[in-house]
Amino acid sequence: MQPQGKRTAFGKRYPRPGTAPGTLRPLETPGAGPVRVTVIDYGPDHFEEKQVGKIEEVFPYRDSPSVTWINVDGLNDVPLLEALGHHFGLHPLALEDVLDCGQRPKIEDYGSHHFVVMKSLNRKEGEDLQIEQISFFLAGNWIITLQEVPGDSFEAVRERLRQGKGQIRQAGSDYLLYALVDALIDEFFPVLESYGERVEELEDEVVVRPEPAVLAEVHRIKRELLLLRRTAWPERDVINSLQRVEMDLIRPETRVFLRDCYDHTIQVIDMIETYRDLASGLLDVYLSSASNRLNEVMKVLTIISTIFIPLNFIAGLYGMNFKNMPELGWQHGYAMALGLMAVTAGCLVVYFRRKGWF
Amino acid sequence: MQPQGKRTAFGKRYPRPGTAPGTLRPLETPGAGPVRVTVIDYGPDHFEEKQVGKIEEVFPYRDSPSVTWINVDGLNDVPLLEALGHHFGLHPLALEDVLDCGQRPKIEDYGSHHFVVMKSLNRKEGEDLQIEQISFFLAGNWIITLQEVPGDSFEAVRERLRQGKGQIRQAGSDYLLYALVDALIDEFFPVLESYGERVEELEDEVVVRPEPAVLAEVHRIKRELLLLRRTAWPERDVINSLQRVEMDLIRPETRVFLRDCYDHTIQVIDMIETYRDLASGLLDVYLSSASNRLNEVMKVLTIISTIFIPLNFIAGLYGMNFKNMPELGWQHGYAMALGLMAVTAGCLVVYFRRKGWF
Amino acid sequence: MQPQGKRTAFGKRYPRPGTAPGTLRPLETPGAGPVRVTVIDYGPDHFEEKQVGKIEEVFPYRDSPSVTWINVDGLNDVPLLEALGHHFGLHPLALEDVLDCGQRPKIEDYGSHHFVVMKSLNRKEGEDLQIEQISFFLAGNWIITLQEVPGDSFEAVRERLRQGKGQIRQAGSDYLLYALVDALIDEFFPVLESYGERVEELEDEVVVRPEPAVLAEVHRIKRELLLLRRTAWPERDVINSLQRVEMDLIRPETRVFLRDCYDHTIQVIDMIETYRDLASGLLDVYLSSASNRLNEVMKVLTIISTIFIPLNFIAGLYGMNFKNMPELGWQHGYAMALGLMAVTAGCLVVYFRRKGWF
Amino acid sequence: MQPQGKRTAFGKRYPRPGTAPGTLRPLETPGAGPVRVTVIDYGPDHFEEKQVGKIEEVFPYRDSPSVTWINVDGLNDVPLLEALGHHFGLHPLALEDVLDCGQRPKIEDYGSHHFVVMKSLNRKEGEDLQIEQISFFLAGNWIITLQEVPGDSFEAVRERLRQGKGQIRQAGSDYLLYALVDALIDEFFPVLESYGERVEELEDEVVVRPEPAVLAEVHRIKRELLLLRRTAWPERDVINSLQRVEMDLIRPETRVFLRDCYDHTIQVIDMIETYRDLASGLLDVYLSSASNRLNEVMKVLTIISTIFIPLNFIAGLYGMNFKNMPELGWQHGYAMALGLMAVTAGCLVVYFRRKGWF
Amino acid sequence: MQPQGKRTAFGKRYPRPGTAPGTLRPLETPGAGPVRVTVIDYGPDHFEEKQVGKIEEVFPYRDSPSVTWINVDGLNDVPLLEALGHHFGLHPLALEDVLDCGQRPKIEDYGSHHFVVMKSLNRKEGEDLQIEQISFFLAGNWIITLQEVPGDSFEAVRERLRQGKGQIRQAGSDYLLYALVDALIDEFFPVLESYGERVEELEDEVVVRPEPAVLAEVHRIKRELLLLRRTAWPERDVINSLQRVEMDLIRPETRVFLRDCYDHTIQVIDMIETYRDLASGLLDVYLSSASNRLNEVMKVLTIISTIFIPLNFIAGLYGMNFKNMPELGWQHGYAMALGLMAVTAGCLVVYFRRKGWF
Repeated sequence: MQPQGKRTAFGKRYPRPGTAPGTLRPLETPGAGPVRVTVIDYGPDHFEEKQVGKIEEVFPYRDSPSVTWINVDGLNDVPLLEALGHHFGLHPLALEDVLDCGQRPKIEDYGSHHFVVMKSLNRKEGEDLQIEQISFFLAGNWIITLQEVPGDSFEAVRERLRQGKGQIRQAGSDYLLYALVDALIDEFFPVLESYGERVEELEDEVVVRPEPAVLAEVHRIKRELLLLRRTAWPERDVINSLQRVEMDLIRPETRVFLRDCYDHTIQVIDMIETYRDLASGLLDVYLSSASNRLNEVMKVLTIISTIFIPLNFIAGLYGMNFKNMPELGWQHGYAMALGLMAVTAGCLVVYFRRKGWF
Repeated sequence: MQPQGKRTAFGKRYPRPGTAPGTLRPLETPGAGPVRVTVIDYGPDHFEEKQVGKIEEVFPYRDSPSVTWINVDGLNDVPLLEALGHHFGLHPLALEDVLDCGQRPKIEDYGSHHFVVMKSLNRKEGEDLQIEQISFFLAGNWIITLQEVPGDSFEAVRERLRQGKGQIRQAGSDYLLYALVDALIDEFFPVLESYGERVEELEDEVVVRPEPAVLAEVHRIKRELLLLRRTAWPERDVINSLQRVEMDLIRPETRVFLRDCYDHTIQVIDMIETYRDLASGLLDVYLSSASNRLNEVMKVLTIISTIFIPLNFIAGLYGMNFKNMPELGWQHGYAMALGLMAVTAGCLVVYFRRKGWF
Repeated sequence: MQPQGKRTAFGKRYPRPGTAPGTLRPLETPGAGPVRVTVIDYGPDHFEEKQVGKIEEVFPYRDSPSVTWINVDGLNDVPLLEALGHHFGLHPLALEDVLDCGQRPKIEDYGSHHFVVMKSLNRKEGEDLQIEQISFFLAGNWIITLQEVPGDSFEAVRERLRQGKGQIRQAGSDYLLYALVDALIDEFFPVLESYGERVEELEDEVVVRPEPAVLAEVHRIKRELLLLRRTAWPERDVINSLQRVEMDLIRPETRVFLRDCYDHTIQVIDMIETYRDLASGLLDVYLSSASNRLNEVMKVLTIISTIFIPLNFIAGLYGMNFKNMPELGWQHGYAMALGLMAVTAGCLVVYFRRKGWF
Repeated sequence: MQPQGKRTAFGKRYPRPGTAPGTLRPLETPGAGPVRVTVIDYGPDHFEEKQVGKIEEVFPYRDSPSVTWINVDGLNDVPLLEALGHHFGLHPLALEDVLDCGQRPKIEDYGSHHFVVMKSLNRKEGEDLQIEQISFFLAGNWIITLQEVPGDSFEAVRERLRQGKGQIRQAGSDYLLYALVDALIDEFFPVLESYGERVEELEDEVVVRPEPAVLAEVHRIKRELLLLRRTAWPERDVINSLQRVEMDLIRPETRVFLRDCYDHTIQVIDMIETYRDLASGLLDVYLSSASNRLNEVMKVLTIISTIFIPLNFIAGLYGMNFKNMPELGWQHGYAMALGLMAVTAGCLVVYFRRKGWF
Repeated sequence: MQPQGKRTAFGKRYPRPGTAPGTLRPLETPGAGPVRVTVIDYGPDHFEEKQVGKIEEVFPYRDSPSVTWINVDGLNDVPLLEALGHHFGLHPLALEDVLDCGQRPKIEDYGSHHFVVMKSLNRKEGEDLQIEQISFFLAGNWIITLQEVPGDSFEAVRERLRQGKGQIRQAGSDYLLYALVDALIDEFFPVLESYGERVEELEDEVVVRPEPAVLAEVHRIKRELLLLRRTAWPERDVINSLQRVEMDLIRPETRVFLRDCYDHTIQVIDMIETYRDLASGLLDVYLSSASNRLNEVMKVLTIISTIFIPLNFIAGLYGMNFKNMPELGWQHGYAMALGLMAVTAGCLVVYFRRKGWF
């Protein structure tokens, strides 16, 4: 899991002011084991998948004509990253960004290769949203992906590669990039769906029991939708750039798939904005409902108090100890007092009813 | 009816992350019967309408010179859709979108044909708003429309085709697309009208009886206007694209009609935004009115309590049992106490009146 | 008067979904008499004004070289409009819009003529704002204006034409269009002025007497400014189009006048936005003032209650009937009790004063 | 002083709907004396300043090669303005705008001359903000400025002209225009500074004493910042146009000064927006503080009342006059009752403390 | 330290309206000592650093081929600045801006040199945010930096220059500018981080103890984020201009570093906006929590009061002194009264429980 962890909106890593650009610092993610490098090399009629022990084993793939996907899990081994970066010619500024987990999604053209930063979402039931950074380096015949922790979002793509279904083994590294990015975008839907269901449940709850816990949950949902929004908007820009900008690395036949993926990001953003609007509306309804309940309680108090106050006064009146209080000696003085109280209470009830207060 | 059903803002369907693009999954809409395919083939001087039993019966129309409109009601028969898609050359990504009922309205150019997604509105009195997805494939001489449930919004267009009134039978498939899209846009007006009337009624109600039920209704209207807005804005873009972009499929003489239709979407959006503003204003007035009513109740309580509290004190004073309380023995002690109470009450009434509190 | 009448933000007319474009339905405006057609034909040295009995009388003016202004009051005579439209070549879609009083202001180029929709404002003291739709057809040597009710905003322009003052008789139909549109824009100023004065008066009232009636008026003003805004923004676009777009029908020497008119619309929009901001500010002040007044009342209650509650307790204490209560028998027991009360009340008064509560 | 005077956001002058464009109406400003015309004519080595008695005295300067600045104080002498306009070829629409003090700042190109509208600010301590309209006509070798009242913002510029310091006498009329406009922009700073200081003082006051007078002042500041904003934004556009648009009248060497002036307007707008944000934040804090104070008062009431209510009940209980109440006869009945009261009060105090209520 | 000091959003310096452009006024910053000028001159294989006594000592560096960085600490010595400006050809308007500490970050092209204004942040734990203005003049082979106070943000860059690590000594003055600007941007991260941590802590505090001090801190954070935002946005524009605009002074190989720096500003702005959103959300939660707590207190009062009021009434009833009150003589009258009280209290408790009030 990643330091964005429980409540932090942004990673706590930032360059110390004034340090030289391109300085690499290892990213120690709690729970991440040793660095694991896997290679998948494929073409229309071959497929090879292996986990390498030493980073040098992946170097020959740089110049092989078939498409190679090198995946690195764990970012705490700086010498390994430097060796990789040196052999594949990755730009030092890009490598620095790989290790800074607070990057916004972006795409950068470094001439010989492109550098793409995306985010992976992970939300377990009852837990807070986790956002992990995924970095891609794309060249003509290889892709390098770097992640903080093992257990990624790409297993379904690997399975498609293994089985060679569809066109994925026929296409180039650009199609693989599309498939990986699309897998990341598709992760938004179940997460948003769970927010959507919760928002709908809350719409009833805020009316029925406007309690602080409900408010805290609405606030938490708004907060996490804000984080999702910060992720989705720049990812939209990344995919738009991939789709539109003239890049040699993206073949025309892949563009129609990227357009479809772009469409999904639009849909994701649309859902986020709608849920944010709904959550804001919830807040208004919560406040009104809570205030309504208070009003109801206040009204009951008002009415009970206001009815009893004059009765109490009458009782107090005849509780006075004056020697000379003629009523006290009357035969029906007590009945008269009770009657006076009943009439007073009755008048007040009628008055309040006429006012429509209950 | 569609899963957007009662309270869901978005359909609950989304691609499983990592699945291959173009995978079709049947869309089981509750209440939708078996798939029904109807064909209308027409020209200036012929008109043919039939319901086909097997999908292969519609294949010959692909290459007939007259205009053919193939309408499919029900999206749960994937083999039928695949056969249709294969014969008419529909793009797999587009077909996947047809089955994903959470699509935003959009237009996509697939070279040989255009793919258009629109929404159909359905709001029965006292029920929640239903939004159904309608997909169009447009080529030079045929249109395919796909809907989730039978009972569509196109009956009036069919009637115009049957009667051959106006220019509809003289014009091509592009004019038919316009007529169908225009019918969908025109559906907004009665729906918006009903919201408008309700908002106006509520403007009085929020002042006269600011009750939670009114608040809930304002919230519901805001919520549904939000959904309408999410539908209308991208539909505006679709119609704008149809009208402006150079497309071979849209003839110049149809553009003036699309401009008129575009105008209607502008008007729809204008109405939605205005009603949203009015509904937001309603919320403010509701809150103020509710608070005003509470104030009024509070004031009555305050005044009654505050007048009686000193009177009660005087009564309590002379209810004390001290042996040596000279006033208790006075001949006119009781009258004096009553007088003191009257003077106190009078002073308070005058004081409150001067403050303008009642 | 028009159906926008009392509280309706939009006319209630909308095309039935699926009807053929260009279908004309008469617009029955309550209070509108029979249709009245007047013709004004003029040039630098002639001026003719007459009311025609039959619509055919205006047909010859179509081809006369002098400028002709045909004004139609009342929109409930469809055959008359169809005859007019047919002879002058008006587009059916435009004529349909003439009869749909919920149109937004717009300009449309139909090749041989331009179609312009504007709004006329009418606000009588103490009444709600009335917005009437005015349609213009502009060709090289004639203008047709269509209005719902007689009694228009153009009398001052007619007077200038009659007297031939200024350059109006020398200029062409484009200058006449400018003059008419300018008259409509100028109508905004007195209306906005009256809102402005009312807002300023209300700024004092919300502080002095924050009553529900004031709130309702603020809400009404916000509501009507919203309607004005919906009118002014598209009118700005219309005049901008007239001024900028290359149109043969607008001569260069008229452009400087249109620029002036455009300036007025900017000023109108600026005033509307400012008054809306001021009205929103009023709402905030209203709510704060109302809450302040409640606070003041609450404070008085609190203080009076809280002072008397312990006094009442002391009185109650010595009202108990225990046999063995030594104080009751003391010579100065009563005085002591009174003293105790006075001290308690004094302490509370000092405490509250120190807290700054009164 | 100008009619924007005490509380009016806009001047109350507007063209009567339908009047001919270019009709001049005198602007009667209360407090403005007779019209005063002054002429300053200068070059690198001569300087002449005089007040003219008759407007015809300024006519010869139109064609003199040296730079001439004609300043008119007072706008109530229409024949004088018409004579000036006729001789210098000023456009009637521009002259009409000079007399309409509700104009927005703007720049208009009339071919032979440019017309610029700016605003002059005037805010005396403890008074409301005054905004006066200043009109400029700029040609190659003369500038005409028109103001409503004497006592202008240009004295420092006049002084620089008299002393010939800097490059002002060497440069042309465009530099003079820059100097005058810059003087108007610089007027914003002290005004904004005074708002800024007041906002900062209020930040403490809203917390310490959230009283209605503070609220009214926050509202007034927001209101006047709104007026300043309405002035500053279009002035930014004016200066941007002067700086960027190709105009023969503005020499390239003046542009760098206009860029500096443009920078100042950006800074002004930045300050206005920031102060508006701060003032809005103040409002929130005010409301929260006022509500907090009420809460504190309420809590004290609650606690005092709630502690005494059961004590009063016990006292009332033993104040009942039943014959057969054994406790009344007990030796230590009174002490027991007092003890019961003390225990009850103690329990409540502990309970409330544990709840953290005081 | 700078006058922005404790609570001032903007420096209090502004040009007196109408003063000639380019007039220099010394900037007296409290705590700034005498002006200190240091020179660093370097190339791939030499490095020289010295503090100069007289300004004339730096003049020879203007024409030396190696890169020279002249740093001036303190802005209160106008003759020194004038001498510097005269020798290096700095534009008077730029020098005036150096001394006006309220400038927005900006870049200006003066032909022979560029002028850049940036801000330096300084926030000590428990103190308010300090923002200092840093001015840069950039030419082909020299950079002049001017600051108000010694103790700058550039020490790490100086260290890199001294040690000659990385490419900094090989590159030109443009790379030095990048390194200095980057150091300023990197200062945002620790400051924002501290706000972020505080906001997260406050998220718990507003729920647990919604006290005025928490509100004041939220307001302060919002206020300082507003200042940071005002700083970050124009700095983004500055760096974008440096990176994009064709400027001879910026070599192509430096652009990739500026792009990285631009990326950091985007990240900074993103963090600011997110924290502002979170802080606004905090305000809502604070208000709701405070209101919730009041509701809870109110409810306890209501329930206790409302239960005791009828009991008090019963006690008062039998405290009346009527001669003829049969119940008083009953054997079990007292027990009956107590029973009546218990039943009444029991009914109320059940009623309130059923209402869900406690």
